[in-house]
Amino acid sequence: MEFRKGKQFSISLLQNMNVVIAGSGNVANVLGRKILTGGDNIIQVAGRNKEVTEELANILNAEPITDFARISEKADLYIITVTDTAINEIATQLHFENAVIVHTAAAVSKVVLKNSSFNYGVLYPLQSLRKELTTIPPIPIYIDGNNNYTLEFLHEFAKKWAISVAVANDEKRLQLHLAAVLAGNFTNHLLAITEKFCKEKELEFKLLYPLIEETIRRVENNSPAAVQTGPAIRNNWETMQKHEEILYTNKSLKDLYTFLSKSIIEFYKLK
Amino acid sequence: MEFRKGKQFSISLLQNMNVVIAGSGNVANVLGRKILTGGDNIIQVAGRNKEVTEELANILNAEPITDFARISEKADLYIITVTDTAINEIATQLHFENAVIVHTAAAVSKVVLKNSSFNYGVLYPLQSLRKELTTIPPIPIYIDGNNNYTLEFLHEFAKKWAISVAVANDEKRLQLHLAAVLAGNFTNHLLAITEKFCKEKELEFKLLYPLIEETIRRVENNSPAAVQTGPAIRNNWETMQKHEEILYTNKSLKDLYTFLSKSIIEFYKLK
Repeated sequence: MEFRKGKQFSISLLQNMNVVIAGSGNVANVLGRKILTGGDNIIQVAGRNKEVTEELANILNAEPITDFARISEKADLYIITVTDTAINEIATQLHFENAVIVHTAAAVSKVVLKNSSFNYGVLYPLQSLRKELTTIPPIPIYIDGNNNYTLEFLHEFAKKWAISVAVANDEKRLQLHLAAVLAGNFTNHLLAITEKFCKEKELEFKLLYPLIEETIRRVENNSPAAVQTGPAIRNNWETMQKHEEILYTNKSLKDLYTFLSKSIIEFYKLK
Repeated sequence: MEFRKGKQFSISLLQNMNVVIAGSGNVANVLGRKILTGGDNIIQVAGRNKEVTEELANILNAEPITDFARISEKADLYIITVTDTAINEIATQLHFENAVIVHTAAAVSKVVLKNSSFNYGVLYPLQSLRKELTTIPPIPIYIDGNNNYTLEFLHEFAKKWAISVAVANDEKRLQLHLAAVLAGNFTNHLLAITEKFCKEKELEFKLLYPLIEETIRRVENNSPAAVQTGPAIRNNWETMQKHEEILYTNKSLKDLYTFLSKSIIEFYKLK
């Protein structure tokens, strides 16, 4: 999936590119701020909600647009960041000759954009993006395109600010997204559940922070399967039973505890 | 659960304490190395397996013992780090007058030590400890004791090297342990599952590291429930269905995906 080097673009095209962003949510906000760090211009932000669109346009030093018919035809790149099911509707309103048009969705094929330009593709950020966070995290970018020109264009564009740029087709992108749900969304959910449990028991959630940090820190250099700890991998049924007893008034958390303990036991094939 | 200040110990007692560790596993190894950083001495390591015990004793500059009858009577503190079910057996072999004796188990009552000394308690590390890791993580310590002397003794002892020391009785310790299983062991298991999925699909697991790091980094200053992302919280059934289709040959991972997606939906009460 490494990007294969191809012909180079003229400097005039690649410097100070003009970008239009459709959408005003988390992806538009964080990706927009990240793009500015690379030196390109965001000339318009197009969104349905006037207030939110104006707020983001202000942050990105761009023109706010709520009428999609007023989208500039002079941009080099159009990035559709709206929710999966709305991408198609917006695509049907946009028609360009050579400008590159992309969406940012993991689970939507690039083909949905095939009637919007000769050059279309995907710019997928493998990161959890929340606009309220002031620190923008490092963003690995996965690109796809219907031709080499689009792939090279997107590579040159994204490498200005992305921590890495690689190619992933529709199938690989969906697999990457699934992996991200497991390692990111589900992990965050476990922490949310833990925080709620701590509140109920009057324990400070933040006291768990050294443990959480250690759990993550060590998978940088170790396979997580090689450093699993806890009662399930030790086959310590007595402790698991005591934990389930604490949860007797909380059926959903008890079920989750049992499910994941069994999953660990199955994973390491303990009987 | 904050430690209440009481009478101070004489300096002679608190400096250069002599410690005996029973057990030679992960807790003995990591806690032992941590204790040395506080300036106290580990005079003996007692374990069943001669080779492992000698190896750890060598690391801790202590005498290796495989016959528990040869445990020194001159130590100030005895720490039993063996597996939960073996604590009682070792406790019955140990009898002291005033030396403090503790175990390190979350799910075992301190009462199991009541016949081993007038001063007994627990020294529970709220951290995931694996002896093969060269970097020792910060360790929050929870202490319990049958009297104020033991509590104060353990507080003075642990504060030399622990990131924090607080009191937790049997009930609180079990709750903390359950929270640690949710946020630590289960999180690590999700990462192990993700790594396995990546291998199967020929994706590099390490490419997810920026996402994993961001997931953890932001809960330092945000409630995880306030920064949840992903298809489940967006109620994006189409994407969840596509993910489940990828997993059609992997029933256990598919079941886990479905279970945790439903758990997220339920948690945020989306219908």
